[in-house]
Amino acid sequence: MSVLIVGSMAVDTVEFSSTGECHELVGGSATFASLAAGLYTDVRMVGVVGRDFPDSMLKSLAARRVDLAGVQIVDGETFRWHGRYNADLSSRESLDTRLNVFEHFRPTLPESFRSSRVVLLGNIHPDLQSEVLDQAQRPELVAADTMNFWIKGTPEALLRLLRRIDLLIINEEEARDLSGHKVIAKVGRALRALGPSRVVVKQGEYGAFLFDEHGAFHAPAYPLEEVVDPTGAGDTFAGAMLGYLDAQGPITPASLRRAVVHGSAVASLCVEHYGTKGVVDATEADVQERVRAFGRLVHYENL
Amino acid sequence: MSVLIVGSMAVDTVEFSSTGECHELVGGSATFASLAAGLYTDVRMVGVVGRDFPDSMLKSLAARRVDLAGVQIVDGETFRWHGRYNADLSSRESLDTRLNVFEHFRPTLPESFRSSRVVLLGNIHPDLQSEVLDQAQRPELVAADTMNFWIKGTPEALLRLLRRIDLLIINEEEARDLSGHKVIAKVGRALRALGPSRVVVKQGEYGAFLFDEHGAFHAPAYPLEEVVDPTGAGDTFAGAMLGYLDAQGPITPASLRRAVVHGSAVASLCVEHYGTKGVVDATEADVQERVRAFGRLVHYENL
Repeated sequence: MSVLIVGSMAVDTVEFSSTGECHELVGGSATFASLAAGLYTDVRMVGVVGRDFPDSMLKSLAARRVDLAGVQIVDGETFRWHGRYNADLSSRESLDTRLNVFEHFRPTLPESFRSSRVVLLGNIHPDLQSEVLDQAQRPELVAADTMNFWIKGTPEALLRLLRRIDLLIINEEEARDLSGHKVIAKVGRALRALGPSRVVVKQGEYGAFLFDEHGAFHAPAYPLEEVVDPTGAGDTFAGAMLGYLDAQGPITPASLRRAVVHGSAVASLCVEHYGTKGVVDATEADVQERVRAFGRLVHYENL
Repeated sequence: MSVLIVGSMAVDTVEFSSTGECHELVGGSATFASLAAGLYTDVRMVGVVGRDFPDSMLKSLAARRVDLAGVQIVDGETFRWHGRYNADLSSRESLDTRLNVFEHFRPTLPESFRSSRVVLLGNIHPDLQSEVLDQAQRPELVAADTMNFWIKGTPEALLRLLRRIDLLIINEEEARDLSGHKVIAKVGRALRALGPSRVVVKQGEYGAFLFDEHGAFHAPAYPLEEVVDPTGAGDTFAGAMLGYLDAQGPITPASLRRAVVHGSAVASLCVEHYGTKGVVDATEADVQERVRAFGRLVHYENL
């Protein structure tokens, strides 16, 4: 059992206007997702970094069942993003984006990675996501994330990819753009018609919807009193969800629903700290406690 | 067992820019709430209408266990609102508001209404809401709704009222204004500190949060494929919630959570049709079916 994760690895400069703080933080979709999936199962990570990528993060990943054989360490600088959040953390603007070594990234799967059971294609060019699938041997579940940049820029490549995946994990605003619908039930149905039999629509502070052949399932975001840094919450959600699914054995409608709950729980641990700290520091006990608290949040006796 | 409901009764002209349709619809917070509560228990309604108020709606209310002894029918025109929704129904603008007979409304409880077990104070001037409480004899639960107009305009009167109620039911945007917080967990805590031991924050298409001494509970909005008219959804939610609570016997944290689910379920029946039609036509079987569907929407096995 193992999850193959491909995506970005980054070093970010993030400004928080509320506190006046500015942080140099390790980020990237593959980083957050791998740390989260590694709480549950063996992870195989595919990405690229420059010589400047902190060794401490590679150690944190390796300490959490993440096989780094697919991480290319090349001459040059790691992908760097500089952004600023607004006061209530509800939006952010990009001040500077330097792709650096990520610009010419071509994901290459080590031989030992090819037969992974679950695959998570982080948000990169849909043709590169397809290339990863070309190299993988019949995974049981393929999940992918995407964003507006590809919806607008390379729609044909994205539609080709969608026909090859089992689970689309996508933000609500982007789900609306891609589907052409506003109402969530129609969004879910329209996206499933594009290929993936399961769709998760991430709604940020409002939680997430899963749509599959058994209908709709909703999980709220855990209501924290303090959200420190929302960066990486969506990638953490996806990583925890797929890590949990892989560790649980058979992938069923019931395990998918529990997986969404685990995604929400670990994402809520993520945003309690700056950068990856919340996910790096999270223990199995922390996850179990948050999942139990989550149960109290949504549980009622149906008389 | 009975619920006393006070609030507005109106005849609205509502334009739907999406369909180009324009409807003459009976509305008002007391109308929606009483129709919804009447699905569960005996309702005592307090409000005012002019001679123009449709007799058919009074008949619909009476047919649903609603005692109209507190509805004043006076010379003049009923409160009239004219508004227009935007294309995706996410916002609306007021084109014309005529208070008419509602302008000098002073709620007066018939003797037979004074000992009601549950009281719902719809959104009117907080001093009038307090006057209703002055006339009621030790209700077991007092709930109130309010809006920005009173938060900005009569904050002292509103704060006085909040110290006298057990349950505040309020829209998210207004909850943020009143509490001074953005994050939902802080909003809930701050509002409870103002008096009501229980707070429900309505989040529209994103559902509702309940905060009480047992923590937080969340119920999503039921994901309909077609929302026709969101008018009255919040009042229907409140009416169904309190009607269910009253009918259930002891008011406990468990029955409160089920009541929120019933509120969500009946509100979802409301928005499937223009005006009050969805609530008027709803049968007990419709409600039970929607509540069961709601259960499937949020249920997962916690292993």
